[in-house]
Amino acid sequence: MIRFDCVYLEGCLPEILERLTASNLEQTVGYGEDAHCAAARGKIKEAVGRSDAEVHFLVGGTQTNTTVISSLLKPYQGVVCAASGHINVHETGAIEHGGHKVLALPATSGKITAAQVEETFAGHRDDANHEHMVQPGMVYISYSTELGTLYSKAELTAISEVCRRWQRPLFIDGARLGYGLASPASDLTLKEVAALADVFYIGGTKQGALFGEAVVFCNPALAHEFRYHIKQNGGMLAKGRLLGIQFETLFTDDLYLRAAKHAIDEAFRLRDGLRAKGYAFLCDSPTNQQFPILEDSQIEALRADFGFEFWQRIDATHSAVRFCTSWATRPDAVDALLAAL
Amino acid sequence: MIRFDCVYLEGCLPEILERLTASNLEQTVGYGEDAHCAAARGKIKEAVGRSDAEVHFLVGGTQTNTTVISSLLKPYQGVVCAASGHINVHETGAIEHGGHKVLALPATSGKITAAQVEETFAGHRDDANHEHMVQPGMVYISYSTELGTLYSKAELTAISEVCRRWQRPLFIDGARLGYGLASPASDLTLKEVAALADVFYIGGTKQGALFGEAVVFCNPALAHEFRYHIKQNGGMLAKGRLLGIQFETLFTDDLYLRAAKHAIDEAFRLRDGLRAKGYAFLCDSPTNQQFPILEDSQIEALRADFGFEFWQRIDATHSAVRFCTSWATRPDAVDALLAAL
Amino acid sequence: MIRFDCVYLEGCLPEILERLTASNLEQTVGYGEDAHCAAARGKIKEAVGRSDAEVHFLVGGTQTNTTVISSLLKPYQGVVCAASGHINVHETGAIEHGGHKVLALPATSGKITAAQVEETFAGHRDDANHEHMVQPGMVYISYSTELGTLYSKAELTAISEVCRRWQRPLFIDGARLGYGLASPASDLTLKEVAALADVFYIGGTKQGALFGEAVVFCNPALAHEFRYHIKQNGGMLAKGRLLGIQFETLFTDDLYLRAAKHAIDEAFRLRDGLRAKGYAFLCDSPTNQQFPILEDSQIEALRADFGFEFWQRIDATHSAVRFCTSWATRPDAVDALLAAL
Amino acid sequence: MIRFDCVYLEGCLPEILERLTASNLEQTVGYGEDAHCAAARGKIKEAVGRSDAEVHFLVGGTQTNTTVISSLLKPYQGVVCAASGHINVHETGAIEHGGHKVLALPATSGKITAAQVEETFAGHRDDANHEHMVQPGMVYISYSTELGTLYSKAELTAISEVCRRWQRPLFIDGARLGYGLASPASDLTLKEVAALADVFYIGGTKQGALFGEAVVFCNPALAHEFRYHIKQNGGMLAKGRLLGIQFETLFTDDLYLRAAKHAIDEAFRLRDGLRAKGYAFLCDSPTNQQFPILEDSQIEALRADFGFEFWQRIDATHSAVRFCTSWATRPDAVDALLAAL
Repeated sequence: MIRFDCVYLEGCLPEILERLTASNLEQTVGYGEDAHCAAARGKIKEAVGRSDAEVHFLVGGTQTNTTVISSLLKPYQGVVCAASGHINVHETGAIEHGGHKVLALPATSGKITAAQVEETFAGHRDDANHEHMVQPGMVYISYSTELGTLYSKAELTAISEVCRRWQRPLFIDGARLGYGLASPASDLTLKEVAALADVFYIGGTKQGALFGEAVVFCNPALAHEFRYHIKQNGGMLAKGRLLGIQFETLFTDDLYLRAAKHAIDEAFRLRDGLRAKGYAFLCDSPTNQQFPILEDSQIEALRADFGFEFWQRIDATHSAVRFCTSWATRPDAVDALLAAL
Repeated sequence: MIRFDCVYLEGCLPEILERLTASNLEQTVGYGEDAHCAAARGKIKEAVGRSDAEVHFLVGGTQTNTTVISSLLKPYQGVVCAASGHINVHETGAIEHGGHKVLALPATSGKITAAQVEETFAGHRDDANHEHMVQPGMVYISYSTELGTLYSKAELTAISEVCRRWQRPLFIDGARLGYGLASPASDLTLKEVAALADVFYIGGTKQGALFGEAVVFCNPALAHEFRYHIKQNGGMLAKGRLLGIQFETLFTDDLYLRAAKHAIDEAFRLRDGLRAKGYAFLCDSPTNQQFPILEDSQIEALRADFGFEFWQRIDATHSAVRFCTSWATRPDAVDALLAAL
Repeated sequence: MIRFDCVYLEGCLPEILERLTASNLEQTVGYGEDAHCAAARGKIKEAVGRSDAEVHFLVGGTQTNTTVISSLLKPYQGVVCAASGHINVHETGAIEHGGHKVLALPATSGKITAAQVEETFAGHRDDANHEHMVQPGMVYISYSTELGTLYSKAELTAISEVCRRWQRPLFIDGARLGYGLASPASDLTLKEVAALADVFYIGGTKQGALFGEAVVFCNPALAHEFRYHIKQNGGMLAKGRLLGIQFETLFTDDLYLRAAKHAIDEAFRLRDGLRAKGYAFLCDSPTNQQFPILEDSQIEALRADFGFEFWQRIDATHSAVRFCTSWATRPDAVDALLAAL
Repeated sequence: MIRFDCVYLEGCLPEILERLTASNLEQTVGYGEDAHCAAARGKIKEAVGRSDAEVHFLVGGTQTNTTVISSLLKPYQGVVCAASGHINVHETGAIEHGGHKVLALPATSGKITAAQVEETFAGHRDDANHEHMVQPGMVYISYSTELGTLYSKAELTAISEVCRRWQRPLFIDGARLGYGLASPASDLTLKEVAALADVFYIGGTKQGALFGEAVVFCNPALAHEFRYHIKQNGGMLAKGRLLGIQFETLFTDDLYLRAAKHAIDEAFRLRDGLRAKGYAFLCDSPTNQQFPILEDSQIEALRADFGFEFWQRIDATHSAVRFCTSWATRPDAVDALLAAL
């Protein structure tokens, strides 16, 4: 069985395991106030080009989204996002559990537009019954998106400008940030993402760490008492150093982007191979997730030897599936998959 | 100024005021445990044809929706409803504030179908990632709907059957129940509504009471400890008898439906008059809300003498507006409006 | 049966019923934006001596406490109050349902002290693990208290000063405000209460209205978007004018305090009569609630003819009970009770 | 600097790190559905002597407490616990954030009694206003407690019996379970704990794992849809196998209790050494936390070389401090501390 189901299949990058082992018997204080976390924060602030940023570490994506969003919104506010956004479909209502409505907008290939955001903000205020409606309090987008697509610099800049004009924070879910930045199709750098977002996170869990997300408050005023929010939402790791050590490692010698680049390279080999064989795709993804359209019978047959995710039905006899590559994807695994298709 | 903005414009039916005055100095215990509430419960149980039903009184619609829905759902469950449903658009996220996602389905003229509900229930269980998604735990519909439309007996029966097969409660928002039942277009009786719903409420606020909604649990097992829910949600009226007295009066001599019938008669006079003048309508409403399409300039001019609600833009020069009639609508007011159009 | 159970036993002051009747067929807009609400706000602002105050009307006490408190606190903050405070014991956890811890302090005769509040604020910041603890975000006190007692001007001023030094709002639950102000034992005026509180409310439900509480934001910055909070918490009355008309009436010709004064007079006649007969009391209450200590057998016998509340056991054969007087208490009822004891 | 601040100072038991390294490149499915988790569940079910138990893995203690408690309670119910319980003081109101009141009882040395629990359950039902009060829905205790103390088998059995008679679940926070079971003062086995609790957890974070808590539902009916609760509360670890591998290791060759035993041995050496020098203690702790009373000046001086926690002031010149031992405590560290005192 060779698996392409997701990017969680293996443990972590060997460099991380080495550092965890080397530091195992060091004594450090808990809850993220140790020297490893401080060092990791320093490296991240340098990498994002913002010495005034405030950086916090959490364990996983749903926890991070819930904690950040509930820290930014008033009770009567909701979060604007793509209908396909992770917070709208795959977090078991964690945002609503925290009291906030997800104001989902129709999305194209996983993305929303500045015009949609503007219309949402303006429409609310114009409505005579606005107090009877949830106020749109912030915007959430994913980079790269749940469909592997990317916002261009122009698109992201336009959304950021709308948010700043309305003084509503822009939050970027970067669970797959590296896969976006490492794509040849991206025209954005990490520093540019940091300049356009008010808050974003650098995903570790999906990018070679055992677990961990680094939240970067580019607008540090928004981080007020954020540690209380982390603790209340069950996200304050006792041995916080585990997060510090991992991000210290990921931001040493450019490991974060190098690992992502490997995943992209293998995804492109897969994509190009499938294209050459004549397969169509659900959408044009320039990152580590590829969504080819296969015959249903072929999908069944493939399951004997390969792990992957059913994505959506296309017609009576075809469906789109998802193959993911990661830092750990072996080239011979991609070769085997191509050979089987 | 003659107002058709909503059904809240006047105080209450004179019969109610008389009864409140007559009983004013009686001493009764609080919180809905007095003899008037008991009598009102008895009359309602008789009217709905269910001696085993459990009846509770609350003050307003948003409060009732929140309290009922949060009492029926587990934390990880959401409520299925029409995208145009009151809980999805006009309650400032009260359902989400209580922790639950509103699973909004595309609606036609304010209604959803049994097929949509079936697809929602079945689709959730089929999904391999179902634990990552909100579980559809109940269905909410409005009768009459926010657009004045009505489910037919066949439509409501089909939805009820899907809910019972999946063992998920069907909750009917009856804020405008009387306007539906009193419409000549309705093929449902109060007893039939009670037989098809698991819980529903009989709206008082929009139907001639000062305030008040009577929640009827047709499935009394669902009412377990409901008084705790009422109190926790701030809905337990200290002088609960005010609700008892009002519903006692509404369910004496058929006042509830008679008052609604008056509203329907005036609405139909308005509708027929406008049709005769050649106006088109946003939808075909058989109840007390009418949505004619007017020229924007005409709308502006009309505002000098009449109160009504802007509903939605139709094209560059036309918009739909809403006129409501109620128990209190004077025939000469409708005449004056027709004359002005 | 003559009842002294609570202050909810009758409907409302006759003046209120007259005004509701006289205005019944007026057409007004909904949700508290009508002329009656505007007039009532004006009268209240004048009475509290603060033209810049912001006034909102809600239906009941639990709803008011929940809405105000959740609008003032961040998610990680709690509300400091007396262990005997209404929000801590008699609201079915409505504050916690809204997400906030009640930080209950030991109380003496229903009251807490400035020193306790100071210690709570200071202790939190001094703790090395403060992020692991709920932050005390505001203070809630009741005037008069749940035991009928009163804060003196000196006591209230001291609490207010601590709150202002720490920039944490002071919220006064005035469900029984009139009974406090009308007591000869009070050295506070309504204007002084307004000067010391950041937010407080003027109780209508317990003071002769059918229902209704008038929230006064003495610090209007704290009222930001408060109408969204009201709506989300199910407290926005459709026929908002009912609240406006009632408070307009209560603040005309000093009706509010006159009605409270009657209750106090009758309570004092009862207290003095019981003292003369040698009864002891649970505490020395200078307001409309009296807590004499009776023999258990006497309590049982009394129940045949009188309604009242069991309060707490004192020893093996004695318990304290509660008798309440109100605007509606008839002098001959007090005479009858005294004769029976 | 030698640290005794807490049990989080080092990484993890070397056996765990070895197993993580050995398995690093295995491909497994995510979210706890892999073979390692299955194996760990099997070992735990065997160790607790309940083949019908349901076992789930979460990351940390606060997250576990919140998720379990909110899954067991109805909205109007609260959790009964000791005032010193972790959920009442050190979780930033996470339980209340989830909507539930913590019903804190006065505790002696961190423990509550069966009589207190009985009184709480019975008192609620007897109260005429019970619907105005939070219903006590379950009981939470810690073993070992926050003060290092232990419930005896008789005490725990009595509490369990009260809970079962009232059909309210008993939940044991076992963050420090091993330190309790490994103490010579304990008369309970793991199997006995499992027989008396309805749900409990086996703490990993404080007992030698990198992180992780294993929740054991001894009453599997209570675990209904628990994975939804985990996901909604942000506790579903993507690489769930990390938890499986750790608990597999901890429950191989009795590692869990052996590691705890080492901590107890060192704690007793410390305790006995201090006793011999004449020090008094805040309480008599038979586990890995020791709370000696020191002079304030001595505390200050000790901080130059040792890490430990200030616990509470005893008198004008003395305070209690806390020293913790763990699986990783080196004997020479205890020797050094004893020499310094």
